[in-house]
Amino acid sequence: MVAGGLARAAGHAIYALTIDYNQRHRIELDSAVRVAAMLGAERHVVMPLDLTRFGGSALTDDSISVPKNGVAPGIPVTYVPARNTIFLSLALGWAEAVGARDIFIGVNALDYSGYPDCRPGFISAFEAMAAQATAAGDGGGTFTIHTPLITMTKAQIASEAARLKLDVSQTWSCYDPPANGKPCGACDSCRLRAKGFDEAGLIDTLLR
Amino acid sequence: MVAGGLARAAGHAIYALTIDYNQRHRIELDSAVRVAAMLGAERHVVMPLDLTRFGGSALTDDSISVPKNGVAPGIPVTYVPARNTIFLSLALGWAEAVGARDIFIGVNALDYSGYPDCRPGFISAFEAMAAQATAAGDGGGTFTIHTPLITMTKAQIASEAARLKLDVSQTWSCYDPPANGKPCGACDSCRLRAKGFDEAGLIDTLLR
Repeated sequence: MVAGGLARAAGHAIYALTIDYNQRHRIELDSAVRVAAMLGAERHVVMPLDLTRFGGSALTDDSISVPKNGVAPGIPVTYVPARNTIFLSLALGWAEAVGARDIFIGVNALDYSGYPDCRPGFISAFEAMAAQATAAGDGGGTFTIHTPLITMTKAQIASEAARLKLDVSQTWSCYDPPANGKPCGACDSCRLRAKGFDEAGLIDTLLR
Repeated sequence: MVAGGLARAAGHAIYALTIDYNQRHRIELDSAVRVAAMLGAERHVVMPLDLTRFGGSALTDDSISVPKNGVAPGIPVTYVPARNTIFLSLALGWAEAVGARDIFIGVNALDYSGYPDCRPGFISAFEAMAAQATAAGDGGGTFTIHTPLITMTKAQIASEAARLKLDVSQTWSCYDPPANGKPCGACDSCRLRAKGFDEAGLIDTLLR
């Protein structure tokens, strides 16, 4: 949501892309629809892509549990193999099809879970690859992968949401939503989100 | 098929991946199932990913016709935006999930249609990106994108199929299959295939 808000603030028309990868926290797809509408997206594609066929992650394989004991060092089992590579590749394809050259992704390399595909080195390498990958590139077009949140802390991201007057109650972060429809409060994603709002001195209206 | 045959000949176990991108020539999916079986694949995933939601290609938008007047210079309208980037990203995800490190793709930069994502520069850039993209890479693992056909002519590829005793009657190339279930004979893909078999002095048993 904050990356999209910054794209809009920079004057871009929004073509929102959400991947329904049959994730454990599919409830985030409902949030994505609301967020795209709030951002005034020209279009919003929710693309089904069933990554549970590959598995290899707690988010795409029900036999692997989501850790609940606190954020640990190293890459956690919630890492989905090549997920952001797949997401950015799809964004690249859609961008080329609609004539867009700016791709925004809300990855974050501080206060994050240790995923390799959230780091600046990965993003730079993807951008270099994208320059070779398309017909648009052949015509001299270049694609820019914008990562406005990559060096922010979660507290800074919460503050940006407030500054942009974005309604965070409509967002979702929890990896393992209980049956009651509330965030679990114990997974890494819940913990990092709570830490961000706490440090920013802001209320997370999703939890009200 | 030939890239897979060469992977098998090199001693690799085959995990075959086919993307059902709602392509105009969906009939190729049936061929893919037969080819994977003939190659003795350990597994074959046919992954649905509806790229007609993005459009931008004669293969994914019915309002754009497949050219039938001969192979022309430049990138044709059958180019699908970022298609091989998307395919390789999915292959990377599945490879990481199953512990594979070798990815084979049958791209060809000679006797081809001019697609940017079939060229050596693209493949190298993808490999460099993949090295930054995964948890396996963090652990020191490296992914190799094998393109055994990239510098072959279509005639050489036809000869390789014969050498490997692969049954080409079970493959499919045509972009715009008529209702009779036979290749159209006029699209670029049919023309390049025919040229290859002709130059190799071999019979294309698909046409018998």
